[in-house]
Amino acid sequence: MKNLPDKTVERLSQYRRSLNNQLTKGKTNIFSHELAHLLHITPVQVRRDIMLIGYSGTLRKGYDIKEMINLIGKIIDTDEGQRIAVIGMGNLGKAFIHYLHEKGSKLRIVASFDVNPDKTNKTYAGVHCYHFDRMAEIVKKEEITIGIITTPPEVAPQIADKLVKAGINGILNYTPKLLSVPDEVYLEEYDMITSLEKVAYFVKHRD
Amino acid sequence: MKNLPDKTVERLSQYRRSLNNQLTKGKTNIFSHELAHLLHITPVQVRRDIMLIGYSGTLRKGYDIKEMINLIGKIIDTDEGQRIAVIGMGNLGKAFIHYLHEKGSKLRIVASFDVNPDKTNKTYAGVHCYHFDRMAEIVKKEEITIGIITTPPEVAPQIADKLVKAGINGILNYTPKLLSVPDEVYLEEYDMITSLEKVAYFVKHRD
Repeated sequence: MKNLPDKTVERLSQYRRSLNNQLTKGKTNIFSHELAHLLHITPVQVRRDIMLIGYSGTLRKGYDIKEMINLIGKIIDTDEGQRIAVIGMGNLGKAFIHYLHEKGSKLRIVASFDVNPDKTNKTYAGVHCYHFDRMAEIVKKEEITIGIITTPPEVAPQIADKLVKAGINGILNYTPKLLSVPDEVYLEEYDMITSLEKVAYFVKHRD
Repeated sequence: MKNLPDKTVERLSQYRRSLNNQLTKGKTNIFSHELAHLLHITPVQVRRDIMLIGYSGTLRKGYDIKEMINLIGKIIDTDEGQRIAVIGMGNLGKAFIHYLHEKGSKLRIVASFDVNPDKTNKTYAGVHCYHFDRMAEIVKKEEITIGIITTPPEVAPQIADKLVKAGINGILNYTPKLLSVPDEVYLEEYDMITSLEKVAYFVKHRD
């Protein structure tokens, strides 16, 4: 399958989350308009995405929830999983480790990095924390493909450089500092303030 | 101004972040295609959003960065700011408090809530932590309009109910559990796994 658009991949992940939620409620089938409502998007958008992944429901019963969850998994998951490092063991770094640990995801955090001697050489939820200086060595040894940056923003660019040089393929930047990386590295940037500013805007303009 | 679309508000927040970054680099003007490149979207999208907020640049110099930052602020910020509560003082709740504290945003976290006696009646970065039971009372007393839910997913629905009953206007749900709230409450849901699954997909399909 050709590469899907950025936003479609994001929505597939969100569809799966919604579908799993519906499954635990005992639902077996769902219509595009129901799924659209859960995600605050249009039914046309849902149908377009689902068509892109080559799936179709029936007019009478809609989509089969289990089938769709499996299909989405085949598309966005990797069989072998991915090996991930968290850089910056503050609250946010710990939240990520804790979250994936609980979730039992195929995306596995196998190492973390920090400079603070109170944090290095310790293990948090089964994940060992190394000093920044050992990044190149550990990324290679542990076959890490993705780095999540949760450091203070000022050091994020230098961390990204180190990760790129160590041969990482993807970076998730959770700091407000925007980064630039070579084209062959996939970069996703998320700032926690964005979701909050969105809520604040609609709270201000409600009525 | 009429309510802007969901996604436009999200992008305005992201434009502002990029523009502030450019400003610190000494740039004064920017073209739509440059801004588009920084955000991995199309120049047409950027121009459409900027037109929606009634701004225009010049063909020769592009947009004036400072003017645009100010205009975006007028649209998405509230003069009085917003008063926010964080519910669930785990790593993620603490990360939010720390983050807004550092940022000096107009969005102010004025209270936090938890059930754990090790956390309640303590203060973290200037924010006091109350027991869940006091939610209705504190939300009213502190005139809180927005709640950020960072609890374990199982309790999220019951927390959302409490917040709605206490008269909150907006909820940012950071747990993987999808919520439903009355129409008059604005709900934004974000799952940390979504960004990560997106990176994993593109790392898997790169080349």
